Amino acid sequence: LLTQLQRDCISVVLVSPRNPLNIGAVARAMANFGFSSLTVVSAYEPHWREARSAVGSPQILQKAREVDTLAEAVRDRALVLGTGTLTHRKPEQPVVALPKLASLVNEKLEQGGKIAIVFGPEKHGLTRTDLSWCHALVQIPTDQTQPSMNLGQAVAVCLYELSVRAGHIDDTPLPPASGPASPPAVASGQIEVLASLIEEVMRAADYSPTHMHPANQHDLRLLLRRLHLNAADHRRILGLFRRILWRLKRNP
Amino acid sequence: LLTQLQRDCISVVLVSPRNPLNIGAVARAMANFGFSSLTVVSAYEPHWREARSAVGSPQILQKAREVDTLAEAVRDRALVLGTGTLTHRKPEQPVVALPKLASLVNEKLEQGGKIAIVFGPEKHGLTRTDLSWCHALVQIPTDQTQPSMNLGQAVAVCLYELSVRAGHIDDTPLPPASGPASPPAVASGQIEVLASLIEEVMRAADYSPTHMHPANQHDLRLLLRRLHLNAADHRRILGLFRRILWRLKRNP
Repeated sequence: LLTQLQRDCISVVLVSPRNPLNIGAVARAMANFGFSSLTVVSAYEPHWREARSAVGSPQILQKAREVDTLAEAVRDRALVLGTGTLTHRKPEQPVVALPKLASLVNEKLEQGGKIAIVFGPEKHGLTRTDLSWCHALVQIPTDQTQPSMNLGQAVAVCLYELSVRAGHIDDTPLPPASGPASPPAVASGQIEVLASLIEEVMRAADYSPTHMHPANQHDLRLLLRRLHLNAADHRRILGLFRRILWRLKRNP
Repeated sequence: LLTQLQRDCISVVLVSPRNPLNIGAVARAMANFGFSSLTVVSAYEPHWREARSAVGSPQILQKAREVDTLAEAVRDRALVLGTGTLTHRKPEQPVVALPKLASLVNEKLEQGGKIAIVFGPEKHGLTRTDLSWCHALVQIPTDQTQPSMNLGQAVAVCLYELSVRAGHIDDTPLPPASGPASPPAVASGQIEVLASLIEEVMRAADYSPTHMHPANQHDLRLLLRRLHLNAADHRRILGLFRRILWRLKRNP
């Protein structure tokens, strides 16, 4: 079981939820399983207001954080997990089946990293761009003839699984790490600092024509998250690209 | 994972559901996890009709069985599992935490027994009388400050757990049974035949004053389910009580 401290390190992120009943259902599932940190990205204001002002609207909705972009929502997160059904696209990230998610989450929690689990809008789920902020894609094993889950039910199932299968019983010592412990990965916001710098270098070096820039950014986000950079890696690579940028600009 | 054949041996039973949206959510969760057998006990007609006539109402609702009593709903079931939060009453049945449910379900499926998982009305859940038809009470491990789950979410979490943790991978042989296999328990309807006979014997023997009869019936239902009678037990006990009844009536 997860301790309360561990639950507090896991946030739920909703990207553009539409249905006020679904938003309420998400908050209820969070309360049922002892999670309290909710972030809503580019909420549709009328529906968001309606959900918050509903009778008996839980504390979680009152305290929810509102941000404009997914990047902002996950800035301090060392592990960002997208959710979805994978029917329409081949994912670019590693895919983890929900029943196997606990060990990945435990590893991150033991390193002191914070985690976000991200749910897309009801109609179409997370976009390819949304997913480029994610380290992995969590797949709920559903039936192929009806793969797409209701938002509130998907959140309930994910939080149930984490709540009962991640973490360690309070008074049981942590299992010894296998091999030397790997240093913790840097948070999403730090990866963004590096990504912006590299993009600037690419532009300064005329790496590709302007119309290719969005695709390059996308690929870069994916690449940098695949690397699971630790603080030392991050510092080193940042130093290198700062140097490169300085040379490129001095000597165009 | 459960095979489709195994999923078809597990039915969902809703006792007096009220909210059409919840009924729809239950059907959706069943479709998501590949379950198709739904029984509704003493449905509130206007809401039940509304749920069935909703746009995109799933096949499962069209094919759902409607019955008047829980006894009828579970007549052919060898294992009846109630669900609830246990906050208000001390349960009279054994309690199984949802994460441990798979082994109990597997044992029953291997014996060829059918299973029902029963959910109560939204407001107050299953009554003590409803629970007297259940062999065990399944508890979803929720937070003490907000233990009560939304109906659709509770069904989703239970079916997810069964779907991924019960059953066996298709091409893996069943594990060897430990010790000699116990013969399968008789179904709920057969237990009822026995219970009715014993009640008749109790009346014929003036076992207790009339106002105690409901309480006696209740206790008897619980007792007979705790015994997990197999067909031979059942036949033997039935024979004994028939004999007793015959003697009591012949010689009052």
